[in-house]
Amino acid sequence: MPKQTKYVLSERDIPEKWYNITADMPNKPLPPLHPATHEPIGPEALAPLFPMELIKQEVTSETWVEIPEEVREIYKLWRPTPLYRAHRLEKALDTPAKIYYKYEGVSPAGSHKPNTAVPQAYYNKQEGVKRITTETGAGQWGSALAFACNVFDMACEIYMVKISYEQKPYRKLMMNTWGADVYPSPSDRTNAGRQILAQDPDSPGSLGIAISEAVEMAAMDPETKYSLGSVLNHVLLHQTVIGQEAIKQMEMAGDFPDIVIAPFGGGSNFAGISFPFLRYKLTEGKKLRAIAVEPTSCPKLTRGVFRYDFGDTIGMTPLLPMYTLGHTFVPAKIHAGGLRYHGAGAIVSQLLRDGIIEAQAVDQIDTFEAGLLFARAEGIIPAPEANHGIAAAIHEAMRAKEEGTSKTILFNLCGHGHFDMASYEAYFSGRLQRHEMSQEEIDAAVALIDTPAIPA
Amino acid sequence: MPKQTKYVLSERDIPEKWYNITADMPNKPLPPLHPATHEPIGPEALAPLFPMELIKQEVTSETWVEIPEEVREIYKLWRPTPLYRAHRLEKALDTPAKIYYKYEGVSPAGSHKPNTAVPQAYYNKQEGVKRITTETGAGQWGSALAFACNVFDMACEIYMVKISYEQKPYRKLMMNTWGADVYPSPSDRTNAGRQILAQDPDSPGSLGIAISEAVEMAAMDPETKYSLGSVLNHVLLHQTVIGQEAIKQMEMAGDFPDIVIAPFGGGSNFAGISFPFLRYKLTEGKKLRAIAVEPTSCPKLTRGVFRYDFGDTIGMTPLLPMYTLGHTFVPAKIHAGGLRYHGAGAIVSQLLRDGIIEAQAVDQIDTFEAGLLFARAEGIIPAPEANHGIAAAIHEAMRAKEEGTSKTILFNLCGHGHFDMASYEAYFSGRLQRHEMSQEEIDAAVALIDTPAIPA
Repeated sequence: MPKQTKYVLSERDIPEKWYNITADMPNKPLPPLHPATHEPIGPEALAPLFPMELIKQEVTSETWVEIPEEVREIYKLWRPTPLYRAHRLEKALDTPAKIYYKYEGVSPAGSHKPNTAVPQAYYNKQEGVKRITTETGAGQWGSALAFACNVFDMACEIYMVKISYEQKPYRKLMMNTWGADVYPSPSDRTNAGRQILAQDPDSPGSLGIAISEAVEMAAMDPETKYSLGSVLNHVLLHQTVIGQEAIKQMEMAGDFPDIVIAPFGGGSNFAGISFPFLRYKLTEGKKLRAIAVEPTSCPKLTRGVFRYDFGDTIGMTPLLPMYTLGHTFVPAKIHAGGLRYHGAGAIVSQLLRDGIIEAQAVDQIDTFEAGLLFARAEGIIPAPEANHGIAAAIHEAMRAKEEGTSKTILFNLCGHGHFDMASYEAYFSGRLQRHEMSQEEIDAAVALIDTPAIPA
Repeated sequence: MPKQTKYVLSERDIPEKWYNITADMPNKPLPPLHPATHEPIGPEALAPLFPMELIKQEVTSETWVEIPEEVREIYKLWRPTPLYRAHRLEKALDTPAKIYYKYEGVSPAGSHKPNTAVPQAYYNKQEGVKRITTETGAGQWGSALAFACNVFDMACEIYMVKISYEQKPYRKLMMNTWGADVYPSPSDRTNAGRQILAQDPDSPGSLGIAISEAVEMAAMDPETKYSLGSVLNHVLLHQTVIGQEAIKQMEMAGDFPDIVIAPFGGGSNFAGISFPFLRYKLTEGKKLRAIAVEPTSCPKLTRGVFRYDFGDTIGMTPLLPMYTLGHTFVPAKIHAGGLRYHGAGAIVSQLLRDGIIEAQAVDQIDTFEAGLLFARAEGIIPAPEANHGIAAAIHEAMRAKEEGTSKTILFNLCGHGHFDMASYEAYFSGRLQRHEMSQEEIDAAVALIDTPAIPA
């Protein structure tokens, strides 16, 4: 019978600083542009929505940003997270590859999202903010922010896409348990929501509408700010605690990855595990493949275009340089709700453009096949988003087998699937569908983009 | 802001032996009796249902039982589990008491149940068993056994009370994900099930019927055995890894509990945390209160009678010496399904009779109030069963405050509530009911018991 190996760190090993990869990038991310003037915007443009300390982190050029002691105290509730050698999965695959995974599902909210929710809530609290608004689709981000706001005794107002609100009552209840107010979006609480409801009283909602509602509530009230769970630089920065811990744990294992893999929605999961390892590639020329894994139904990295685009559907945010399928693109309703986002953050987009990282797209049926194999081998039931990373790791392990090489593969198991069992039911019953986009569909989506091109 | 303190052990600290409290008890548990002859039965009577190694553990008088290396390997997947100081809960209560909790929800199945499911599957596998049957109500035990059978590549057949099967599809899907076959009980697969269905095709099922089905399937086939998740001596034995780890962690904290608390259904959770601590009371005379916490709707420890009774509803098992409300007693449908059992295991019953341990009953509404306070203070959402322990811990902490003494309280947080959010919804919406039993109801239940009294 295979061994079971778990690499456990002590609380002293929780990182003291976040790693800012932009300091080491050969080409820095392009600046955000004002939506009307198309001129680069300064930090002050973000002040109505975010506290100043987070805006500073968004634009900092320092390599390391100190983690406040209060945030590290909260991290101790679940950090350091374990890193496992997947002996049983290796055996099931009969591969010479060594497979490791970092497990972020041990957080109270069940994913990596609290790594940034906690500092975001902290800095807002420090600057006197009383209430944070946000949107949530599948609910992972909403529950992480609800948890974080509860820790710092702040109000939390969450606009949850109405169809998810109705289909995922347990995620909503988790947010309620931590004291958050959750509203189905579109709601009658905002101008944006009322406008949509006037046109279509039965609107199922969308992430774009929910963002509009959350942003509107924050912009209206000086004591309220808005919070985002991915895409932006400061969000990715906070997630680097994952990779920093993983480096120490790989040292315990006497190993270093040839390949680092993570699912990709807006970039926070991928950045969290890969950026600290990429530092060795950028500063020491170490060989390392970092693979971002997206669904074939939303292939912005593998089939999208690199240009300026809005972060939200209706175009309220600054214009960001991103690989995108267009801000009005609506991905198929796959079960990995956390990966249904039209664009990639500015840092990841630049890294991809410069060939420093890679991207792969996997169909959801293949991801559930991989996730089930993993659950039966390793005992942990993964979230549908996490299954994308597992599928790519298995693919690379099987390639190593064919090539007869012994690769070391590390992936981030970003969350458990306890609130996603209905998606496994859909897989078991054969109700899941493939969602390969045709070139015509890609072209049609991209043709709708009317925002500025990237300067040559 | 309060500190966050988590005591983490290394894999080397996973216990190498289970602790058998019967070796240290002043009065040993009374022997089980044959249901027809009322004579004490020997180990051979259990052979059709259990592998010989587990039967030996059921009756051993050794103090320590070695844990097989293969079982310790599997334990490493989630063990050692963390022990926390509940600084935030203490602050919320403004109590001088120090509160610690051991968290067993980090196991793949989300509770302490895999601690015994894994060795039970292991010993069955060693003795050539191909398939294990069991019953499950709320689903915690069924999912733990499904996980364990999957690890050892054995078939697992689970009879799930039909009303739970319909109301808790996600628990069922968790079992399916690990490869178990789950049948709503009563089923048409067994004589027992067909008999019930003939009388009542719409029977919602009961734990008693499900046990009958699982036992019948095991008794019919020499390659199939049956497995139980609580009550029996060997099950309690396996759970003592919890308390042994907690002793080391309390040493790290430089502390020792005045009071150890756990929820009580059949005894496995309570035994797991308390027996290793009770060893110091039994062998060194150390002062220690151990409190088993049951629901007011099923108060066998606080209001039941001590006598011989059946382990199952329809009377197929040997007669066991137990505090009981009668094997035909049907508790109110509270949300802590794991605590809806009519009797207590033989060891715990003897300890209670001898005044070595204590028992308290708490109403479910008070347990959810406590659980919500805990979730908001400590960030972990507890299972409804676990909320019983939390309520008692809070009660003792408030008593310490009134008395102006600084007690050290330790409780076992036996599982998370990710699959129980519907019960929180019932609490939030005011739909939960109180279930205090009247003396008439207790008398009526006890009057139905027609099994032998305990010899004087």
